[in-house]
Amino acid sequence: MIQEIKELQEKIASAVAALEFPVQPADLYDPIRYTLELGGKRMRPALALMGCSLFSRDLDAALKPALGVEVFHNFTLLHDDIMDNAPLRRNKPTVYSKWNTNVAILSGDVMFAESFRLVSEAPAQVLKPVIDVFLKAAIEVCEGQQWDMDFESRNDVSIPEYLNMIRFKTAVLLGASLQMGALCGGSSNEDAQLLYDFGCAVGVAFQIQDDVLDVYGDPDKFGKQVGGDIISNKKTWLKLRALEKANDEQLGQLTHYYSGAAFDPVEKVNSVRAIFDATGVKEEAETLMQQYLHEALDSLQQVNASASHKAILEVFARELMQRQF
Amino acid sequence: MIQEIKELQEKIASAVAALEFPVQPADLYDPIRYTLELGGKRMRPALALMGCSLFSRDLDAALKPALGVEVFHNFTLLHDDIMDNAPLRRNKPTVYSKWNTNVAILSGDVMFAESFRLVSEAPAQVLKPVIDVFLKAAIEVCEGQQWDMDFESRNDVSIPEYLNMIRFKTAVLLGASLQMGALCGGSSNEDAQLLYDFGCAVGVAFQIQDDVLDVYGDPDKFGKQVGGDIISNKKTWLKLRALEKANDEQLGQLTHYYSGAAFDPVEKVNSVRAIFDATGVKEEAETLMQQYLHEALDSLQQVNASASHKAILEVFARELMQRQF
Repeated sequence: MIQEIKELQEKIASAVAALEFPVQPADLYDPIRYTLELGGKRMRPALALMGCSLFSRDLDAALKPALGVEVFHNFTLLHDDIMDNAPLRRNKPTVYSKWNTNVAILSGDVMFAESFRLVSEAPAQVLKPVIDVFLKAAIEVCEGQQWDMDFESRNDVSIPEYLNMIRFKTAVLLGASLQMGALCGGSSNEDAQLLYDFGCAVGVAFQIQDDVLDVYGDPDKFGKQVGGDIISNKKTWLKLRALEKANDEQLGQLTHYYSGAAFDPVEKVNSVRAIFDATGVKEEAETLMQQYLHEALDSLQQVNASASHKAILEVFARELMQRQF
Repeated sequence: MIQEIKELQEKIASAVAALEFPVQPADLYDPIRYTLELGGKRMRPALALMGCSLFSRDLDAALKPALGVEVFHNFTLLHDDIMDNAPLRRNKPTVYSKWNTNVAILSGDVMFAESFRLVSEAPAQVLKPVIDVFLKAAIEVCEGQQWDMDFESRNDVSIPEYLNMIRFKTAVLLGASLQMGALCGGSSNEDAQLLYDFGCAVGVAFQIQDDVLDVYGDPDKFGKQVGGDIISNKKTWLKLRALEKANDEQLGQLTHYYSGAAFDPVEKVNSVRAIFDATGVKEEAETLMQQYLHEALDSLQQVNASASHKAILEVFARELMQRQF
């Protein structure tokens, strides 16, 4: 990671660590501290500060909204983990499994409120547009999660539908982070919109990468159960594309393993992965990621800001494509 | 209900009915429409408009934030019903029981976001203070719900702790509604604060009334299961005060019925109600409500606004004390 991004991430890490929450009620605020201390890449606030840095040297103008996006993101993970029955997140028990569902619902609600509070610390002259960008994305993230859940019980999910779902569930918040940061830094609406487009395209690529890592990731680095999506029959880009490309024998096997019957998890993951290998969907996914990356860089190129600052965003996007966790 | 309040409530009813949400994803937005169509007293938006009307003829300045508070309130009910395992609300199935828990979590989250979107339509010159008032109350409402749940497993809850809990869970949002409305109408900070104090005191009285109605309400009018708090062993003002006032025999009976063992619900409700009657806690609760009402009216009196407008708020508060549902 280049020096500038490292510095932004350190700035964010110390700002997240400095966030203060009341001690009581403990079951409301302990889960929030626990969640925020689990770490994570802090990608969204980094993007917000990068968005700001293209137009202003005063990164503090975007710091609180950047933190707001990070708190919001962690809130969505907290509620998603309930809905997805996910026992682990970043190798640690999720809030609902460590405490209980009610605690996870309510501490999530407070995190959502705290994220609004942080976002509403945006500079007065851009407060309304920053809130508008944030809330549009927040609502779309919820819509994406709903589509994701709806897909579980559907057998006719198309790849365009899937890409639209991950755009809402993951990508728009990356775009919104950049857009909010840019607005805080005094950008024009046009440049903020171009950065939103850049972030969305990077975000879709990021999520496809996530699907790939779930199957092909290094268990020590990934932080989640490798093959978890296969075990839970989750519709991912790899699965949907493999179903399209499979020959009769492969299709029979996929149908067998995704039937909902109980299987030995290791056998299931290995068998499905073998079909993914044979159909070449991993390589196709990587090609698709590159297409999104190019789309992103096209938008970035049009932003009216210094090339050296834009280069940092380009490096950030390229490194995301090569991440292993 | 006097004419002015009726008109405000009609204005709100049609504004709530005019709120538009997307059709898809259906499991996200149908529960929101369902919840908002269930009705309710629309007390909070009415208070917001009344707060505004003390200082301005332009009630539209407060309309969107007023709706935001109503949507927020309905969001909290939606999530509380999951946590409280409540099958009915306003005589209709609750969202989590009609759909499922995941639907209730996520459509609640979107309602919260929508409430913030409406609040952020406050006039630009008071946007930040209105948001601050809203979020402070929103967070306190969550804290109140957490205290309420914490109390379930505690046997040493004091009456002051209980009153503080209902202040957070119920009262602060009534106060905040008035304060937000006043600010939208151009009030001074001092007057907005006095109206907050008025609303909080009315809100505590309102919740004590709710505890009384749960036991003594008319089943046809109340809209919830009468005696529900007794059946679920809920700590209410009546229960806590009865435990303080009970003689040895009554205490034995209360301990018996609140032991957590299974009882015939009708027998349990009738037996506990008989002890409430014998210890006179209903009358004490009504005296306490009057004290809060006087406290509220003291604050109202200090507000620098026309007596005729303030009289409407006084009537509203007095009628709340006499409500039967």
